[in-house]
Amino acid sequence: MKYLPLVVALCLGTQLAQADTTTVGQSPWGSADEIGALNRITPESILNVVKRVKSGKTYDLSVEYYVGMPSYYFLGQPRYQIWNVHTPQGTIVDDPNGLGKEKNSLISYSGSAISMYAHTGTHIDALSHFGLKGKIYNGFATEEHLGDRGWHKAGVENYPPIIARGVLLDVARYKGVEVLPESYGISVEDLRQTAKAQGIRFESGDVVVVRTGRMQWFKEPERYMHNTPGLTRESADFLAEQGAVVIGVDNISTDVWPSKEKDNWIPVHSSMLSIKGVPIMQNVYLEELAADKVYQFAWFGAPLKLRGADGAPMRPVALPID
Amino acid sequence: MKYLPLVVALCLGTQLAQADTTTVGQSPWGSADEIGALNRITPESILNVVKRVKSGKTYDLSVEYYVGMPSYYFLGQPRYQIWNVHTPQGTIVDDPNGLGKEKNSLISYSGSAISMYAHTGTHIDALSHFGLKGKIYNGFATEEHLGDRGWHKAGVENYPPIIARGVLLDVARYKGVEVLPESYGISVEDLRQTAKAQGIRFESGDVVVVRTGRMQWFKEPERYMHNTPGLTRESADFLAEQGAVVIGVDNISTDVWPSKEKDNWIPVHSSMLSIKGVPIMQNVYLEELAADKVYQFAWFGAPLKLRGADGAPMRPVALPID
Amino acid sequence: MKYLPLVVALCLGTQLAQADTTTVGQSPWGSADEIGALNRITPESILNVVKRVKSGKTYDLSVEYYVGMPSYYFLGQPRYQIWNVHTPQGTIVDDPNGLGKEKNSLISYSGSAISMYAHTGTHIDALSHFGLKGKIYNGFATEEHLGDRGWHKAGVENYPPIIARGVLLDVARYKGVEVLPESYGISVEDLRQTAKAQGIRFESGDVVVVRTGRMQWFKEPERYMHNTPGLTRESADFLAEQGAVVIGVDNISTDVWPSKEKDNWIPVHSSMLSIKGVPIMQNVYLEELAADKVYQFAWFGAPLKLRGADGAPMRPVALPID
Amino acid sequence: MKYLPLVVALCLGTQLAQADTTTVGQSPWGSADEIGALNRITPESILNVVKRVKSGKTYDLSVEYYVGMPSYYFLGQPRYQIWNVHTPQGTIVDDPNGLGKEKNSLISYSGSAISMYAHTGTHIDALSHFGLKGKIYNGFATEEHLGDRGWHKAGVENYPPIIARGVLLDVARYKGVEVLPESYGISVEDLRQTAKAQGIRFESGDVVVVRTGRMQWFKEPERYMHNTPGLTRESADFLAEQGAVVIGVDNISTDVWPSKEKDNWIPVHSSMLSIKGVPIMQNVYLEELAADKVYQFAWFGAPLKLRGADGAPMRPVALPID
Repeated sequence: MKYLPLVVALCLGTQLAQADTTTVGQSPWGSADEIGALNRITPESILNVVKRVKSGKTYDLSVEYYVGMPSYYFLGQPRYQIWNVHTPQGTIVDDPNGLGKEKNSLISYSGSAISMYAHTGTHIDALSHFGLKGKIYNGFATEEHLGDRGWHKAGVENYPPIIARGVLLDVARYKGVEVLPESYGISVEDLRQTAKAQGIRFESGDVVVVRTGRMQWFKEPERYMHNTPGLTRESADFLAEQGAVVIGVDNISTDVWPSKEKDNWIPVHSSMLSIKGVPIMQNVYLEELAADKVYQFAWFGAPLKLRGADGAPMRPVALPID
Repeated sequence: MKYLPLVVALCLGTQLAQADTTTVGQSPWGSADEIGALNRITPESILNVVKRVKSGKTYDLSVEYYVGMPSYYFLGQPRYQIWNVHTPQGTIVDDPNGLGKEKNSLISYSGSAISMYAHTGTHIDALSHFGLKGKIYNGFATEEHLGDRGWHKAGVENYPPIIARGVLLDVARYKGVEVLPESYGISVEDLRQTAKAQGIRFESGDVVVVRTGRMQWFKEPERYMHNTPGLTRESADFLAEQGAVVIGVDNISTDVWPSKEKDNWIPVHSSMLSIKGVPIMQNVYLEELAADKVYQFAWFGAPLKLRGADGAPMRPVALPID
Repeated sequence: MKYLPLVVALCLGTQLAQADTTTVGQSPWGSADEIGALNRITPESILNVVKRVKSGKTYDLSVEYYVGMPSYYFLGQPRYQIWNVHTPQGTIVDDPNGLGKEKNSLISYSGSAISMYAHTGTHIDALSHFGLKGKIYNGFATEEHLGDRGWHKAGVENYPPIIARGVLLDVARYKGVEVLPESYGISVEDLRQTAKAQGIRFESGDVVVVRTGRMQWFKEPERYMHNTPGLTRESADFLAEQGAVVIGVDNISTDVWPSKEKDNWIPVHSSMLSIKGVPIMQNVYLEELAADKVYQFAWFGAPLKLRGADGAPMRPVALPID
Repeated sequence: MKYLPLVVALCLGTQLAQADTTTVGQSPWGSADEIGALNRITPESILNVVKRVKSGKTYDLSVEYYVGMPSYYFLGQPRYQIWNVHTPQGTIVDDPNGLGKEKNSLISYSGSAISMYAHTGTHIDALSHFGLKGKIYNGFATEEHLGDRGWHKAGVENYPPIIARGVLLDVARYKGVEVLPESYGISVEDLRQTAKAQGIRFESGDVVVVRTGRMQWFKEPERYMHNTPGLTRESADFLAEQGAVVIGVDNISTDVWPSKEKDNWIPVHSSMLSIKGVPIMQNVYLEELAADKVYQFAWFGAPLKLRGADGAPMRPVALPID
């Protein structure tokens, strides 16, 4: 019984949010909350899903990171880079540790470094990634909480490890296509019918991943990045209402591109991150799950705890469940 | 029966390696192998440990990433950086998307970027991180396989998701100290006695994490980084012989610092990565496991798939098992 | 005669500024001005100094850039990095251009990349580097003009090539020391007496460089960076009043460190950049000029045009004049 | 008379080089030489050109640096980035110096950082940038001298300040076009006739800049970067034989693109850097010189002293001479 007020608050919150798409949501988990829907993950929910695991075959849901990989760069974001800081040969020539040629010829040291926009590859968005009118989810204001190293509130380091039931909605398969058409906005009905065809019922606490098929183009960055099919505000809201704690898509934007809304260039981000408090993910690799028709699974994933960051890479893994 | 030759090969491989500390090891899993001991993780071993989970209480084994965090920089490695690429205010001033002041005032965009040495925070080393005389584990040669974006062989992207039984050896507690003394080299006997005191028996396929207590100094970078207590070649070899598939320590170096060996400045790395093929980890956060005396657990972790990298950040999670 | 109103405005501006150290200055060159004192450089002033050159012996006034060099990092700024993007060997292994091993073995390609805080090495500060109460020199406000890639006003790209008479004030020599004492604040009298001893008279339009001797410690970063002797607000104001168009010091901060003022941690920067509109420089290499007692010279320097940056590296060169 | 042996050696060197395009050149200035043709710049040559200056009107020969500017990225090189490390607002929120809100609200701190491939914007190539068969100009070998922070030999920090007579060859104007056609290879005859039409005679020690007109497309990166008109090996060799100490072009590659040679994808770089020892420059801004028909001038320029780098940004300035 004790959760009833929360559920009521949540429903009211949802309704209010629908009535106003230009104001950030207030968390039903209190004014200090920074993680939104992830509050629904509990030791009980975790134990429950782990107990349902029926196979040790792992499904790796992450792409690789490499120079030239697709990523946002249209607005000047830095693309992924990796470089050598130490190489066996360079260590001999430079002698950075002062041990001399002989010792550095014995020990062959390789050390690489990376740089990237936090929203590169398979990653999750923090609730601070998009706000409305200078505030982010739960009312935290830019001028109070945004520093030069990111947000002091709602940074991705607050996200707990995410272990939950995962549900795959293979919309591309349901629609009978390899890849959804360019700029196709997935409808609520698409999601309902896909779930029905797959025999899936939503549960509160699910990580829901939606397959457009687009990941098949990942190796062709220019093709992959533009005019992506994706969720609309309505279909994302529908999943949030089913109790999704995370929503991921196998495309670069979660949102359909370009936006179907005149005043909002990125409505799924706005609704999920700014209003509903539901983390979203991009570039989730679903090809193997789809090939094996694994539609429900235990989802294990934990984003890097980048303090203050509005997003972080993560490498989720799925194990089939009953 | 079919695994017998492999077991024999493995034992022989181990013995041969012990006889020569200046030549890289050959993998018992064949000349194409790039992941060494991680080959021991199988769907069966995974299902087995998942079935033993008895609690949904998660233990987060990763530190946070932030500017000023301790990391290797003594040899010129770049330290962790995070910066804002997009801010709500900057987006209004810059108008990078060309949508104008009104729309950019509605949608408050924050986007951060990061850069780091791959061996920063809680991370795992690829087998390519350290080699001997110009070759890495399994004989891959620098001149054939080391490119300008890292190694074409034995890069960390080859590591599978690591789900295994985890074992904590709380050596600091066993020795009755808060933190092991500076430059203390953990002995084989220390490990044996700690395991015995904790009632732990090693199993092939374990992820073994060793606690020095040093993590308590993490927030004091200069104190944390220098003269760290850690494993010696002998104690690391002992764990490898027990069948460890990953060995992690709550310090910055796995190795005791400075090295106890005259000719080798980093013998644990050499032995594990270059000879035995056992991945090692640094900066593993073990304080909560230790406080709750959780000595065995299901370990879930998956390093970022940074193609060609000799190491990668990861955020492992532990769930208690029977 | 036509410059008279300007001179009057300038004097008035100076007086007003002295009366208020917490409000940015207004430029006597108009409300659109972004370069302050550099307006005094004209084709006439340039031709005049070039005509006075009497020797082709060049004095290089810049330090080198290298990993480990001293730079600001106390507040989390990234230190200088350089790394290899292309190497002859890596190009053969990676074949990034698809030309194959033979062609890439013929053409040995090396390509490096760098990153740095803009205020590293020998560099000049833009007037946007420090402001007061949210505004920069000439009243440009943060919320109107500061984007995510720096300032839209008073960025260093606006600085013209700086060709002017240069004057060296070797205060260390005048005081009879190798290096001025730690945290020594250079007084107006020090500057007057040094100039007198050297037989130098100030002229409007001078680039004035002040020698503390500190550069001799440059190769010892920790020693070089802390408790630096330097200018005080009063001595910097004095130079500005003599008509200096740029003021440089052979230390890391121009300012004496720590600040002599209770409420302002960096008063020379405040006064020069925010109030007077006089660019300042750090880490200017004056050892060779000093050794040869070259106290006046033609100064040739042009900062990199980094759009929006609040500072930029430059490598000035001096040629002795009559 | 004393230079005669040098001249002979130089001529012989040139002839030998012509006979073999796959072996690096030996410097006539000795086996330790790292700067090639720049040795021809002397105090005498500098004073000579400075004495010829007739106007103080400066011509700024550098482009600006900004996110999105054209640069090499085809082979994975990082593109130019600038970001804010300190902002007035962020400093108040973060309080990185621990001085508190009041003091940080008074002093408005802005600090930016940059990263770039060394060959970005207006820049000069070090002789180490391109070699042949694992060696660079003057025989320095990769395995002996290439470290992880660039070359220990022939790095750009060795280049002296470059003050010399500059000569503009406006080939586009001579050919009567706005911009030379795509992939147009400038011939020796083009250079001869342009010089003749302009009334210019080459002198040993010149910095020669060649105008294709391409700079007019700089603001359209995709158009600017591809299929650029430029020099051929023959025309570059011709300029080197006239005694050029630096050769610059107003395009991204100096070389015509694609290469006219079957076995060498970048012959001008090979010939100038690897064989002749003549530094070359890219992205030199010549539009204002061309508009004013200033065909000879004093060239003042000094690349940043990036230790070990194979290239460096510089901002050259021209002053008209008699």
